[in-house]
Amino acid sequence: MILSSIIPFVSTLNDVEERLWLDVLSKSMPNESVLPLRKLTDKERKLVDVAIVANPDPTDLQVLPNLVWVHSVWAGVEKMLQQRESPRYSIVRLVDPELSRAMTEAVLAWTLFLHRDMPAYAHQQSRALWQPLPYFSAKDRSVGVLGLGELGQQAAQALEKQGFQVQGWSRTEKHIANISCLFGEEGLAQILEQSDILVCLLPLTPHTEGLLGSENLAKIKPGAQLINFARGKIIDEDALLYELNTGRIKHAVLDVFMYEPLPRSHPFWTHPNITVLPHISAPTTPQSAAQIVAQNIRNYRHLSLLPKTVDTQLGY
Amino acid sequence: MILSSIIPFVSTLNDVEERLWLDVLSKSMPNESVLPLRKLTDKERKLVDVAIVANPDPTDLQVLPNLVWVHSVWAGVEKMLQQRESPRYSIVRLVDPELSRAMTEAVLAWTLFLHRDMPAYAHQQSRALWQPLPYFSAKDRSVGVLGLGELGQQAAQALEKQGFQVQGWSRTEKHIANISCLFGEEGLAQILEQSDILVCLLPLTPHTEGLLGSENLAKIKPGAQLINFARGKIIDEDALLYELNTGRIKHAVLDVFMYEPLPRSHPFWTHPNITVLPHISAPTTPQSAAQIVAQNIRNYRHLSLLPKTVDTQLGY
Ligand SMILES: NC(=O)c1ccc[n+]([C@@H]2O[C@H](COP(=O)([O-])OP(=O)(O)OC[C@H]3O[C@@H](n4cnc5c(N)ncnc54)[C@H](OP(=O)(O)O)[C@@H]3O)[C@@H](O)[C@H]2O)c1
Ligand SMILES: NC(=O)c1ccc[n+]([C@@H]2O[C@H](COP(=O)([O-])OP(=O)(O)OC[C@H]3O[C@@H](n4cnc5c(N)ncnc54)[C@H](OP(=O)(O)O)[C@@H]3O)[C@@H](O)[C@H]2O)c1
Repeated sequence: MILSSIIPFVSTLNDVEERLWLDVLSKSMPNESVLPLRKLTDKERKLVDVAIVANPDPTDLQVLPNLVWVHSVWAGVEKMLQQRESPRYSIVRLVDPELSRAMTEAVLAWTLFLHRDMPAYAHQQSRALWQPLPYFSAKDRSVGVLGLGELGQQAAQALEKQGFQVQGWSRTEKHIANISCLFGEEGLAQILEQSDILVCLLPLTPHTEGLLGSENLAKIKPGAQLINFARGKIIDEDALLYELNTGRIKHAVLDVFMYEPLPRSHPFWTHPNITVLPHISAPTTPQSAAQIVAQNIRNYRHLSLLPKTVDTQLGY
Repeated sequence: MILSSIIPFVSTLNDVEERLWLDVLSKSMPNESVLPLRKLTDKERKLVDVAIVANPDPTDLQVLPNLVWVHSVWAGVEKMLQQRESPRYSIVRLVDPELSRAMTEAVLAWTLFLHRDMPAYAHQQSRALWQPLPYFSAKDRSVGVLGLGELGQQAAQALEKQGFQVQGWSRTEKHIANISCLFGEEGLAQILEQSDILVCLLPLTPHTEGLLGSENLAKIKPGAQLINFARGKIIDEDALLYELNTGRIKHAVLDVFMYEPLPRSHPFWTHPNITVLPHISAPTTPQSAAQIVAQNIRNYRHLSLLPKTVDTQLGY
């Protein structure tokens, strides 16, 4: 029999958000006591082997000497890896089918937004201009997906089912039916040169930070359109503005930015060829995330099983 | 052996469009001579049994006394039925898988546009406002499709595959897997009351003209959104403006209008809750339409087979 045990919840969330998470996590784990870290006694802190985290301040975790692993309720965990030394505990990120579904839906929605020329039609409407634009069939449109992980792979497959020509790019070689899978530097050059619509679903790591800077953006097919649903720092914002202003890149849909919320004075807000979204492409649903976390913690308690952990060297 | 025969092309298109159609039709039917009606001699006109039409002036067809049937290169043929008497020839409308694919794509694209709150996010961007809106999962969103014909049925199935709750409405009773199929007056009331997003894919007939007038629009679920990809006259434009102004209908995406092109002074152009499209949801592709027409005419010549014809009483 497993005894009830204490799991600290460590976050930088505001009070309302913290209470929401504590509530759904407690309900999904009736055999555990999920508590804010500050409520744990010194003795309790020494007993803790697993913590649940939401964007924690890594120094907060130093008070847990016997921590074996932490479960993040987000999918992106780059902030936890920005310390000088690798953490002594393992990091598990959220893999939630409902999150993947929402992201796939967002990729489809905004790819179709660009494919069906919605920005141009909105501009025409603002000038009361009735002007059908040339129609391209999906089969004549090449969509490139950067990153073929939990999110990228499912998104690429949905785009392929929708009739687009799909290429994907990842670090290691992949084989996915009907998708041309590229990797490495050469693969990157090819996907940039050939895609009409590029979707970024890479994690932010030391290798991907600034990856889409002036050099790589200049390889993009003239007239191509870009979607960034991953992390702002993967794209050099000034270099992107330059390519949008020259017209090489026709339109960008950005959900993530160097600084969030995007500062009110930022030129992206008013750029006619940028669609700004407030980091909403795939919102974490606490209810469904809590179920996933609970199942992973049950497997650990009962079967001593740990889910796949983040590779701190690779950064994802 | 079938001898080469003359097929008049009867349209109200401009010269450039007419030439394009004559070119692709001729290429797809090397055994036939496809010619503009004006080039036929009196003797030739008497021999004609089949014509290809694009929005013809019905009086033009009166000079073809032995006409058995006409093949329209459009899907909507309501204009050909607006005479006092039913025509003496049969009418075949275009059924083109490429057209259905493009329409299904458009329904998916603009349903996702509404589902993912793109109009609200565009408005927030114009005010430099960073504000995530509540996210609803597709499974909690009810989409109603009015008309379950060539276009409506495929669109409804694609929406269902995308995870939406889908209801459909038609004249006769239908059974489609995972779609709740309604019909009749009661069915209409139900679909109007329950749908979060309503998609109109009905043909324009004496029964559907003005169907979405003040009485039926007032039945729509408060906060619902509307897409019209069928024909403008199905919706009473003033009644729609009224419901948009009261806020009962949150947003409308309109591709078709009472008068097209939409007059520059029309209030739809500047309404914040209307997306105006210039009749582009499913463009006819001459190349693919010509293949369909050619195959139907071959079947007629060789096998005496006629495709399904329009019911002039029902109007579609
Ligand atoms: N905007 C939002 O609302 C939102 C929501 C959730 C997540 N996200 C972001 O989406 C990102 C991706 O999520 P995920 O779950 O798909 O991540 P994942 O499962 O870790 O997959 C990452 C993918 O990127 C590839 N990759 C990593 N480094 C690379 C490099 N240097 N060169 C080429 N390919 C590289 C990986 O290649 P291999 O397959 O070869 O390892 C893998 O295919 C997250 O990190 C997060 O930042 C955003
Ligand atoms: N915007 C564009 O670019 C574009 C492009 C192509 C077509 N269209 C429009 O789309 C329309 C629909 O095309 P389609 O090929 O799907 O037509 P269709 O195959 O003739 O199907 C019509 C559907 O509407 C239903 N219906 C007809 N009258 C009705 C009534 N009084 N009450 C309830 N249901 C009724 C029919 O019911 P039953 O199944 O019971 O007969 C059928 O399901 C065309 O007529 C055209 O106007 C627009």
